[in-house]
Amino acid sequence: MPAYRLDLAYEGTGFHGFAAQEGLRTVQGELEEALAKVFREPVKVVAAGRTDKGVHARGQVVSFAAGRSVDPGRVERALSSMLAPEIAARACVLVDDDFSARFSAKWRSYRYQVLNTPTPDPLMHRLTWHIEDPLDVEAMTRAAAHFVGTHDFASFCRQAEGRGTERTVLDAAWASEGDLKVFHIRAVAFCHQMVRSITGFCVDAGRGRVDPDSAPRVLAARDRGAGRPMAPATGLILWEVGYD
Amino acid sequence: MPAYRLDLAYEGTGFHGFAAQEGLRTVQGELEEALAKVFREPVKVVAAGRTDKGVHARGQVVSFAAGRSVDPGRVERALSSMLAPEIAARACVLVDDDFSARFSAKWRSYRYQVLNTPTPDPLMHRLTWHIEDPLDVEAMTRAAAHFVGTHDFASFCRQAEGRGTERTVLDAAWASEGDLKVFHIRAVAFCHQMVRSITGFCVDAGRGRVDPDSAPRVLAARDRGAGRPMAPATGLILWEVGYD
Repeated sequence: MPAYRLDLAYEGTGFHGFAAQEGLRTVQGELEEALAKVFREPVKVVAAGRTDKGVHARGQVVSFAAGRSVDPGRVERALSSMLAPEIAARACVLVDDDFSARFSAKWRSYRYQVLNTPTPDPLMHRLTWHIEDPLDVEAMTRAAAHFVGTHDFASFCRQAEGRGTERTVLDAAWASEGDLKVFHIRAVAFCHQMVRSITGFCVDAGRGRVDPDSAPRVLAARDRGAGRPMAPATGLILWEVGYD
Repeated sequence: MPAYRLDLAYEGTGFHGFAAQEGLRTVQGELEEALAKVFREPVKVVAAGRTDKGVHARGQVVSFAAGRSVDPGRVERALSSMLAPEIAARACVLVDDDFSARFSAKWRSYRYQVLNTPTPDPLMHRLTWHIEDPLDVEAMTRAAAHFVGTHDFASFCRQAEGRGTERTVLDAAWASEGDLKVFHIRAVAFCHQMVRSITGFCVDAGRGRVDPDSAPRVLAARDRGAGRPMAPATGLILWEVGYD
């Protein structure tokens, strides 16, 4: 059976997240419906990261197998015309059938965009979290640095999953891009709501509501209630997934 | 009667343009409804530029008079909370009662954003026109330069209006900002669909479909059919309005 890797971008505003849910508009739902038309059979995809409601993607990766062979360039063009403008197929290639977008991934990176201006900007509202208070980017990066390494992230995960809450963060840093304060964080894998929870902590460090150096204490508490309010979905983008 | 100037930004995607229309969602309709709550009486606004369906604004200006006095800071905050996130009140000040957002304006400027990448970007689709073909920005600026000055823009206006189609363009130039090709054009006033028509011509010059130096001939034809297809509303932003 031919196996495919498909790279996707989407604006998450109008979707109830990536994962298919009966009766709700999801990225997986729209994608599998389009793939079924291209391959003339039901197709199930596996994603590198299951983004939540309202979360965007620049570099989502999915894999799937199909009973019949269709030229990958044709798959890409057909999907792009069927799914535009909220979803775009950025690339489609044939892969070995042991490739899994999820299990073959070595790391995932996310970008979080904070718009830090005195007044909100309607042209940015779908892609940012607007914060009026001046943010101290150095304090935010100092907070972020505490998360790098292997830790139990129970204080920053929505709930314990089957495989626990220990995760390995590879890099985490904030930067200024004009009026945007931008967070890039890369990990082998993330637990549920981990990026938005860490972002919420960093932003509160940036506006002086929490000591950036209290992050190790919050991690050690292993208690969801020990953290800070989570950042909203609007500013979050699944940025890139790394494979060998 | 106290008179106000109000500076507005909005994302036009969800609106049938600025101007109020019975039974349709418009920026003016939402704004006047909110103002009626703040002033507890019907309020009519006058805008510097009546943007079309789907067109955005960073620096729209409106003026209005009210029977009762409300602190401008309170007006700004009340509007912002009622109209968020698609419309934002950026500033509100008291003005002399002979100020008109429309008739006191000395010039208007628009920005048009073209996303010039091989594949579309869902994160930019609401704010750009996506063009796959590589664009020659020099050819686009050469085309744009022909529009500067006082001309009869009948070939670039949807229809002759009461005051004719002669207009004075003050500046017009294209620039590259990463993957974006950005057009800034400033005029004393514009006729209907003029920016999108000029943009369409420039983009066709940029992809080699029309000679940039044919612009004077197209202007001289004074015939809407002599131009090129108009650029879509998505990429257009009313950028700034100038007053003395």
